[in-house]
Amino acid sequence: MKKIRAAVVGYGNIGKFALEALEAAPDFEVAGVVRRSGAENKPAELVNYPVVKHISELKDVDVAILAAPTRSIEVYAKEILAMGINTVDSYDIHSGIVDLRRSLDKVAKEHGAVSIISAGWDPGSDSVVRTLMQSLAPKGITYTNFGPGMSMGHSVCCKAIEGVKDALSMTIPVGTGIHRRMVYIEVEEGYDFEKIAAAIKADPYFVNDETHVKQVESVDELKDMGHGVNLVRKGVSGKTQNQLFEFNMKINNPALTSQVLVNVARASMKQQPGCYTMVEIPVIDLLPGDREEWIAHLV
Amino acid sequence: MKKIRAAVVGYGNIGKFALEALEAAPDFEVAGVVRRSGAENKPAELVNYPVVKHISELKDVDVAILAAPTRSIEVYAKEILAMGINTVDSYDIHSGIVDLRRSLDKVAKEHGAVSIISAGWDPGSDSVVRTLMQSLAPKGITYTNFGPGMSMGHSVCCKAIEGVKDALSMTIPVGTGIHRRMVYIEVEEGYDFEKIAAAIKADPYFVNDETHVKQVESVDELKDMGHGVNLVRKGVSGKTQNQLFEFNMKINNPALTSQVLVNVARASMKQQPGCYTMVEIPVIDLLPGDREEWIAHLV
Repeated sequence: MKKIRAAVVGYGNIGKFALEALEAAPDFEVAGVVRRSGAENKPAELVNYPVVKHISELKDVDVAILAAPTRSIEVYAKEILAMGINTVDSYDIHSGIVDLRRSLDKVAKEHGAVSIISAGWDPGSDSVVRTLMQSLAPKGITYTNFGPGMSMGHSVCCKAIEGVKDALSMTIPVGTGIHRRMVYIEVEEGYDFEKIAAAIKADPYFVNDETHVKQVESVDELKDMGHGVNLVRKGVSGKTQNQLFEFNMKINNPALTSQVLVNVARASMKQQPGCYTMVEIPVIDLLPGDREEWIAHLV
Repeated sequence: MKKIRAAVVGYGNIGKFALEALEAAPDFEVAGVVRRSGAENKPAELVNYPVVKHISELKDVDVAILAAPTRSIEVYAKEILAMGINTVDSYDIHSGIVDLRRSLDKVAKEHGAVSIISAGWDPGSDSVVRTLMQSLAPKGITYTNFGPGMSMGHSVCCKAIEGVKDALSMTIPVGTGIHRRMVYIEVEEGYDFEKIAAAIKADPYFVNDETHVKQVESVDELKDMGHGVNLVRKGVSGKTQNQLFEFNMKINNPALTSQVLVNVARASMKQQPGCYTMVEIPVIDLLPGDREEWIAHLV
């Protein structure tokens, strides 16, 4: 069987885990890795793969896994879709998803390609579960409780404050979609911890949440890529009240995001041209191999 | 907006809850109810609907919700699909699903209709979650733990034993996909409880499970339609071990089954002719209304 040829675009944390997930998948072949520094100082795990500065230097790419920062996704995706290559990403600004989908849908259709966006765990697999739960009890409330786990956005926000050498913001679920922020910072010499703590608590990222700031010797020693979610819905099926649903996971964050990216890269090969979110893709398309065998095994 | 006209075929427990779910749905219209006794002794809740003996007596049916026993589904579905009407069912013999799908796929395609089969909660919504979990950690083990809740199949099996007046078999989850059976029976006069208990325990339905049989005055007083599931998977994403996933629900059994049937009846209007299981349908098609609005809200 012909394997799907995938390129990894961007080689940070997600790119590294995406490469591992591609290597572990039975139906993929690594077409190569695209990174700013190209083949210079190639790390050991890339020795057998083409490493280039631009995707056009790679041969026969079916799908590009965009492991690049969220804000650069649209530009990358448009350029690659215009080459007739499918793209997948884990764009994670919830409020920008509808616009990104419209914008990429146009380009994808013009060039006979498929794009699957916002495919990580949230947005991503959690979105599939939230949508399923909504359908099972059309009236009711869903709460998404994140963590405990590191919030990239909140950590970066803290690091931008003057006098902060390094920072880690942990998201702690306290139920009903409310989160506590536990912030650990290293303070640069000559700066006042109390003033920095006050500045963090006053930032729009933190001002609405219960936030605790602690000074530590080493932020790096606290870092762990574990994360989690607890999704709950209580609602009404038909006219019957008190239907209870819950989804939990405890996971390595970049490993799961990357596995989802590989899954949707596979699914992209089975869709009509256009741009999709994960809730618009049949879940069986996420799996390799024979459809009837999976139906016999999983349904 | 034109509403979807649905017929309920069969008016037992599921049929009654399906009618409620249709009445609660914003995008459906009840075309009528098909039952063996037709309009004779119409119950109060059916007073405003046509109640007929055969679906051909109803006008402009878009989709038929087959709320009939599992073993009669294939015959009903084939007849109704041949009329160009979509069908949905909650056929629940896991080992028969692939064959039923093949058989109905042919008829559906011949008549330009859509059939969505095995759409309840297991098989059904659980299948969607199992498939998603499989994709999130391609290597690993999933356990489906049912209950506590009444098993229809096991209860019927007990009632078939001579001397059993009424029976209730409860499924109790003990973890890792293993279940205890708690069986409550009313014994007919002149029969020996111990002999009946031994016959139940020796039956193929029970012989592999830990089974306890209790004699009670009234089985009816113990009956409750609550049920539940705990689905767990521990596995590997890419090359990263120990990824943990869990789905739980505590629900009214026929209410959830019926809500799912209404959801797939809606989804059937959006698919190409053919026969599908729920894992082959995008979850967003289960919801009424505007796709972009749901994406903005749920993804």
